[in-house]
Amino acid sequence: MTDHPTAAILLIGDEILSGRTKDKNLGFIADFLTALGIDLKEARVVPDIEDEIVAAVNALRRRYTYVFTTGGIGPTHDDITADAVGKAFGLPVDHDPRAVETLTAYFKEIGREANEARLRMARVPKGALLIENQVSKAPGFQIDNVFVLAGIPKVMQAMMEALEPRLARGLPVLSKTIEVQGGEGDIAKPLGDIQTRHPAVVIGSYPFEGKSGFAANLVLRSRDPGELAKAEAEVVAMAEVLTASGKARGWSKTV
Amino acid sequence: MTDHPTAAILLIGDEILSGRTKDKNLGFIADFLTALGIDLKEARVVPDIEDEIVAAVNALRRRYTYVFTTGGIGPTHDDITADAVGKAFGLPVDHDPRAVETLTAYFKEIGREANEARLRMARVPKGALLIENQVSKAPGFQIDNVFVLAGIPKVMQAMMEALEPRLARGLPVLSKTIEVQGGEGDIAKPLGDIQTRHPAVVIGSYPFEGKSGFAANLVLRSRDPGELAKAEAEVVAMAEVLTASGKARGWSKTV
Repeated sequence: MTDHPTAAILLIGDEILSGRTKDKNLGFIADFLTALGIDLKEARVVPDIEDEIVAAVNALRRRYTYVFTTGGIGPTHDDITADAVGKAFGLPVDHDPRAVETLTAYFKEIGREANEARLRMARVPKGALLIENQVSKAPGFQIDNVFVLAGIPKVMQAMMEALEPRLARGLPVLSKTIEVQGGEGDIAKPLGDIQTRHPAVVIGSYPFEGKSGFAANLVLRSRDPGELAKAEAEVVAMAEVLTASGKARGWSKTV
Repeated sequence: MTDHPTAAILLIGDEILSGRTKDKNLGFIADFLTALGIDLKEARVVPDIEDEIVAAVNALRRRYTYVFTTGGIGPTHDDITADAVGKAFGLPVDHDPRAVETLTAYFKEIGREANEARLRMARVPKGALLIENQVSKAPGFQIDNVFVLAGIPKVMQAMMEALEPRLARGLPVLSKTIEVQGGEGDIAKPLGDIQTRHPAVVIGSYPFEGKSGFAANLVLRSRDPGELAKAEAEVVAMAEVLTASGKARGWSKTV
């Protein structure tokens, strides 16, 4: 039905669910995928429990073009993502020779022992492709349509840059934002009518409290530039009418 | 098996998946629930699509003591959460007389028309309990074990405060954090052994790059103060040994 890739994100880690760590990876990956024309359709957060990770990976990988996981690929006992992803695919997990080589050389360079725990970070499901980590060398990996990334934002971001060439792209989603200085309750009816007339444009209304009172960002998103321009013109006309009638204090285009 | 309540969060909104809005509600609710001894076990983000919301609400409400949703309860066409939650429960959605009264009085007070769009915010599934909104009056609602909250953080937070007395509490989870100035690769083996000896304590290792090099926060979490103290003593002893052997540059207790 769609000719553009879809994606889901799976954030793995007790620390996000306990509130200890405030996730920053979802927003980064969402922006990254949107820029490539890939539609992020769903995200989930699960704890460090193997069965939960396996169930979520299997639910998501069958449903979307790509799945991106973050977290749980370090050297400690709570890092169980590689094994869980292997189990989801029914694949054995073992040391990857290229990863062992990279890590051994790196540990030697920085004067650390290449012990069993550190080399756990070279374990991937059989047949996985590595994802380079320019920050701290321990690689992520790709198995089929699942990309397994680190939880540390700086490392995850480097891995996204490294894997980007492997991703199919879609037509980019174009967007326009019109800020209306007025209450959503007066915007709702005419905006709903515009949405009904332009089904190829997804219109969202995001209210906020500005310096001079309630306001809303009206965000128009579409892959069709012509339809987007038509809907935008109607939203602008609506904002003019609301302002002229005193129901809004003004409007502006924002980025 | 467990004697404490569990919970899931469902964040609803295209704007989170497109990257336009960076979610702050997950972290707040996670902290809030942890303080009450309620275990947050899962979170999901879904778009403004009715079937997706219905499926997620039904999956989560059957599995956990509580479900908290955020977003999609305003007056515009993209606010479909009340209808979706009604559909998930097989209940009709209609105007709640108390909510209509509250909203009508409020709109009169602030000089806005109580039009059809604004009064949409008084629609709830049949039998729902309202959740007070001290910020902007439009209420959230509770139906069975599902709490439906606003997406605007300030409003959502006020609703959490308002509904708190309705929640069962669990024994609080106690936690201790020990920061070790060293690489996770040297910590992993002895820490894994401590985890094995203390199954009633969940031990997580969260690495970061500090001013003087790699370090890790070792977080111990348990409902059993005695077991927590024993595991903490072993982690401290481990940190001492690592420091004495030169594998760590020191350690400290952090909050």
